[in-house]
Amino acid sequence: MQNVDSLIQARWLVTVDPQDNVFENYSVVIDNGKITDILPTAKALISYKANNNYQRHSHVLMPGLINSHTHTPMSLFRGLADDLPLHEWLTRHIWPAEQKWVSPEFVKDGAELAIAEMLKSGTTCFNDMYFYSDVIARSSVKTGIRAVIGLIVLEFPTIWAQTPDEYISKGVAIHDEYKSSARISTAWAPHAPYTVSDKSLAKIRTLADELEIPLHIHLHETRQEIEDAFKDTGGRPFARLDSLGLLGPGLIAVHMTQLTTDEMQIGAANNINVVHCPASNMKLASGFCPVVELLDAGVNVSLGTDGCASNNNLDLFGEMKLAALLAKVHMLDAKVLAAPQVLRMATINGAKALGLESKIGSIELGKEADLITLDMTEAGAMPVYNPVSHLVYSTSHSQVTDVWVAGKILLKQHELMTIDLAEIAEKAYVWSNKISI
Amino acid sequence: MQNVDSLIQARWLVTVDPQDNVFENYSVVIDNGKITDILPTAKALISYKANNNYQRHSHVLMPGLINSHTHTPMSLFRGLADDLPLHEWLTRHIWPAEQKWVSPEFVKDGAELAIAEMLKSGTTCFNDMYFYSDVIARSSVKTGIRAVIGLIVLEFPTIWAQTPDEYISKGVAIHDEYKSSARISTAWAPHAPYTVSDKSLAKIRTLADELEIPLHIHLHETRQEIEDAFKDTGGRPFARLDSLGLLGPGLIAVHMTQLTTDEMQIGAANNINVVHCPASNMKLASGFCPVVELLDAGVNVSLGTDGCASNNNLDLFGEMKLAALLAKVHMLDAKVLAAPQVLRMATINGAKALGLESKIGSIELGKEADLITLDMTEAGAMPVYNPVSHLVYSTSHSQVTDVWVAGKILLKQHELMTIDLAEIAEKAYVWSNKISI
Repeated sequence: MQNVDSLIQARWLVTVDPQDNVFENYSVVIDNGKITDILPTAKALISYKANNNYQRHSHVLMPGLINSHTHTPMSLFRGLADDLPLHEWLTRHIWPAEQKWVSPEFVKDGAELAIAEMLKSGTTCFNDMYFYSDVIARSSVKTGIRAVIGLIVLEFPTIWAQTPDEYISKGVAIHDEYKSSARISTAWAPHAPYTVSDKSLAKIRTLADELEIPLHIHLHETRQEIEDAFKDTGGRPFARLDSLGLLGPGLIAVHMTQLTTDEMQIGAANNINVVHCPASNMKLASGFCPVVELLDAGVNVSLGTDGCASNNNLDLFGEMKLAALLAKVHMLDAKVLAAPQVLRMATINGAKALGLESKIGSIELGKEADLITLDMTEAGAMPVYNPVSHLVYSTSHSQVTDVWVAGKILLKQHELMTIDLAEIAEKAYVWSNKISI
Repeated sequence: MQNVDSLIQARWLVTVDPQDNVFENYSVVIDNGKITDILPTAKALISYKANNNYQRHSHVLMPGLINSHTHTPMSLFRGLADDLPLHEWLTRHIWPAEQKWVSPEFVKDGAELAIAEMLKSGTTCFNDMYFYSDVIARSSVKTGIRAVIGLIVLEFPTIWAQTPDEYISKGVAIHDEYKSSARISTAWAPHAPYTVSDKSLAKIRTLADELEIPLHIHLHETRQEIEDAFKDTGGRPFARLDSLGLLGPGLIAVHMTQLTTDEMQIGAANNINVVHCPASNMKLASGFCPVVELLDAGVNVSLGTDGCASNNNLDLFGEMKLAALLAKVHMLDAKVLAAPQVLRMATINGAKALGLESKIGSIELGKEADLITLDMTEAGAMPVYNPVSHLVYSTSHSQVTDVWVAGKILLKQHELMTIDLAEIAEKAYVWSNKISI
């Protein structure tokens, strides 16, 4: 009998490994934060003596979900302005609210509310873009979640910085602070082509190469963006990023509802990553990201919720179902974007986009133990014929019972271990009372 | 102080009355199963002495949701065959499975699993269509939910009946058994234009008038249905139903993804009811029901989940969000189908479709006390700016804490009072083991 940190026994093990293996009555062994064995439970029980033995006999055990696009502090704006088009929503509601309320305290309280929601719904890693990202990084460290912290850049002054150079130097400082962190990494996050100049984008591109981190940007979100770009620059934003050398395996392009066949092929040839945010694109009536065509062209497509003000949740289980349903009705073909592909978008494809595929995104030997379990005995989850299909079409975030990040348990039988939800509720209540005046 | 059965105190009272009133710190008084007062909690506490005093101080209190289209026993086929187009799904998977497995026991166990899921997700009334509807009626009586039991008719023999006349005589018998029931009513349920003859439809139409009950039918679900109808009958099914005199305020037409402007206007002029099932239409790639145009034309549109095999849930909170998001991206207009309208589709519009608007669908004096409460302190539900918008865009079924039907509590602090969920889980497990072989 070998001594190990933890043993998780499950009814179904959904690995999302390269063969999409699903095993029954299997266990995962965790030692020093990593997955050290994957084997039948009967064998595990005679091979290992674990300090923590988790028996989850009516549960699915799977990789933690990866949210490829968030603005976590915006959880405090959840439901502030609904049923409005993007431009009006952004310029008349969200930007004025941000200008008035965003502060380090706002960012801390909003990020922690968001992290609580993400952990409770099975998300173990998020790719963020917001002001005061140093505060978001500290909240991530404190709560134990894995995060890619966006180093935001805008051409105009905000409460976070006055000039592009100041945004960039603050970003470099945050990168340096976390460069040897196990769970926190960074990505450049120039907001969008229409809010960042060529000069700044070129500088960021060079810095992304030097620091070997991704470049996370909103791109081709709406038709309006393309039309405005033609007026302002004479061409499409995608071509502009191409000419600036931004298209590459480090590019995380979010939304992408407006794409030509040529752009999809150029994107595939350059190994760019696309993040699909179906709820946000639908709610703001931005359009349809051509997910099926992108995947067929060989582009890596992952899933994001976007911020809470345009979704209005950070629940990747809801987002998986929505992605599958939207693709089918958009293509008028029920076979497209089948469940195993959708599950990959919310796990391993997210890991690839973030440059973390060697560490997370699937249950494989040697990877970090970022894992979740789901109880399959909820009324809305029974019976189970095919666990993968179930995870996409029937599963609710409320079935998530346990969450581990790097082998540490952060949610245990539905209870958050590192976050005081009552304290967060009180803070959210105080913020909403101020903001709604 | 007046003695009454129950007093429910809530932080927010969402009435769905004709003025869409939302009140804060309000209470609802229940006596003899009916809503007898609606007033500020401060006043309620000095006016009434209640046998049951429910304090739900961080909750929304609202009308129970109405699911306008279900096939409840199909919960046992949840996830049996996914990622398939309607025709292949129906003819190669669902119909063979039904032929092999449907029995009174199957229907009882499936209906009770479905009722458990519906109660736990805040649904207090459903409009069903399936075989052995006598069994479904008995399960509804036993569990306390409100139901409109579909009297199914098909032209071909099944395990339930051999001839159209036998289907009809069985339907009349079930209608007679429940005609004085407080919570169970009936509707004729000819399956679809392509599975029922003109002669049978004409007979059902006469009987619906005589018995004063609605007529519930799948209509214009797919483009294929229209094309096949042209081949078989030389015209569109809608025109055929019109010529048979079926278009009227008793018609509950489900799906309706294929409609001309003329058909929408004729439907409006005849006061027909349309049931929108967004998840099912998306998952089976059936198409887009023109909800916004129908509502603009004055047609009553309500919401349904369809059966569990094509959704794969019976969760109307998910369905509300989906309906709103789908309409916005389909019309490329973020303002359409705003939250208050969507909430009406899942409540009062459902009541209208079922001919029950004088009894249920809103919180108004004299109506039946079909009510639900939702806890707004879940991580994914905070903060609350606008409770109606929250119910559509952020709320999860897991927030439903309590459910009353006709004043009787059926779910209390998340616990089912009339259903043994562990027993149902065991039965679902046994069925799935048989069915998946």
